[in-house]
Amino acid sequence: MKIILSKKMGFCFGVKKSVDLAKKNIETSEGKIYMLGPIINNPQVIEYFKKEGAKVVNDLDEIPEKSTVITRAHGVSPLVLHQALKKKLSIINTTCPYVKKVQEIAAYLNKNGYYIVIFGDKIHPEILSLLDVIHNNAIVVSTISEIREISYQKKIGFISQTTKNIYDFKKLSFALLDKTEELRVFNTICKATTERQRSVLELAKQVDIMIVIGGNKSANTSRLAEICQNQGAKTYHIETKNQMKYEWFHPEDKVGIASGASTPDWVINEVIMKLRDWYA
Amino acid sequence: MKIILSKKMGFCFGVKKSVDLAKKNIETSEGKIYMLGPIINNPQVIEYFKKEGAKVVNDLDEIPEKSTVITRAHGVSPLVLHQALKKKLSIINTTCPYVKKVQEIAAYLNKNGYYIVIFGDKIHPEILSLLDVIHNNAIVVSTISEIREISYQKKIGFISQTTKNIYDFKKLSFALLDKTEELRVFNTICKATTERQRSVLELAKQVDIMIVIGGNKSANTSRLAEICQNQGAKTYHIETKNQMKYEWFHPEDKVGIASGASTPDWVINEVIMKLRDWYA
Repeated sequence: MKIILSKKMGFCFGVKKSVDLAKKNIETSEGKIYMLGPIINNPQVIEYFKKEGAKVVNDLDEIPEKSTVITRAHGVSPLVLHQALKKKLSIINTTCPYVKKVQEIAAYLNKNGYYIVIFGDKIHPEILSLLDVIHNNAIVVSTISEIREISYQKKIGFISQTTKNIYDFKKLSFALLDKTEELRVFNTICKATTERQRSVLELAKQVDIMIVIGGNKSANTSRLAEICQNQGAKTYHIETKNQMKYEWFHPEDKVGIASGASTPDWVINEVIMKLRDWYA
Repeated sequence: MKIILSKKMGFCFGVKKSVDLAKKNIETSEGKIYMLGPIINNPQVIEYFKKEGAKVVNDLDEIPEKSTVITRAHGVSPLVLHQALKKKLSIINTTCPYVKKVQEIAAYLNKNGYYIVIFGDKIHPEILSLLDVIHNNAIVVSTISEIREISYQKKIGFISQTTKNIYDFKKLSFALLDKTEELRVFNTICKATTERQRSVLELAKQVDIMIVIGGNKSANTSRLAEICQNQGAKTYHIETKNQMKYEWFHPEDKVGIASGASTPDWVINEVIMKLRDWYA
């Protein structure tokens, strides 16, 4: 068996920053420290933080006054921040800088009267916090048929969830040009996402099987698996080595390994070790 | 022979406005009146104005002080206007309102630090006067390979000559998205152009032969002929009935007639009359 790794692996810049910040604060916290939703979409990392003493909750109500709360890399709603301040919580805001930038652009477009269209997954946490920033004053689309339903607008601002595919974003931009006199497109897809997608595409062309490692709820990991599948590679999206099955492989296979932006190195290494054990 | 007319014929709004304004001023002018370049790209109309007493010149130097000068529908350079004022000329500015709007958008983009890309014909008078407005601070492109040569820019403003094809404009916008973080597209193609191109495309599908009538230098007329050709219709771009040849046609033919935005009705009518004479 030949194992080939994708050129872009491990945490992206934003996830690394978020995880480091959480780690530092959990280590030095004396009392209980709370996490408002999983800070990144990787259950193994969250499990690690729980062991280190963090308590993961879904609502501010579950957090006692004057505690410390860590918010998600996907961004946090201004309303939640306001309520947290009212409860005198210490806030560790781990919002990814690229996500923060999309929020700023959206706020600017909103203030300047643009009809805002967002390319994104309607229930992804990044999109939910983004919508909160602009008081839901936008529509979220993921297909060209949704674009076709938009009525003609004087000016449209178009932005994207940071982990979307650039080619799809461009296709939707193309369709939006029929809907307005002025189209203002901000390419808010983070470079790490585009690079990772490109290297995965390259790899998928060379191998028999692709193993894409990352959280089941991780949008960027799902996208990588999708790209491999579209390329025609036999693709498995797994969270950990435990989901991998011996019968998927043949000793002569070329196997490509890729991972999402929130997959820690140790989870990747365990997958590689297991493959080597099986087909040493 | 069956003759079918395109749904959109005759002068467009801008040409009509320009021609009416020139006509009114030429009729009421007592002394000599000058035209700085042909006000529209139709030699038959210009010939008519010459007969009415207008003198067509190519340079301000040819116009005596304190005379009246009529400028083109395609726009006029601010520098030329300034020089005309210095010569104490009365200026009849027939710039098409849609062309004026592109100039305003270009000036706005220039002032706000955008790298300006214009979809246009490099030597078309509309583009030349547009470039003058923004002190040549733009690049003019007509193909995707020209877009590919552009280096990465922080923000790009993209506009079009008013008579270009919307589909090509969209394709170039798509390519430009690779070149910038922010792409601001203003669809400055005038609606009359888009509608005319659409109705010509429809017509070309139904007929054996297309006759497209308009000035040889008329960009919008050439585009109509191009669209018919691409559709697979046997197409002739003529200026007047005199260029039409008997042997082009067969008595059983379905013949489509279309015309550019600057082609006067009487030129169109003469073509139709001649066809009827031949194949009554």
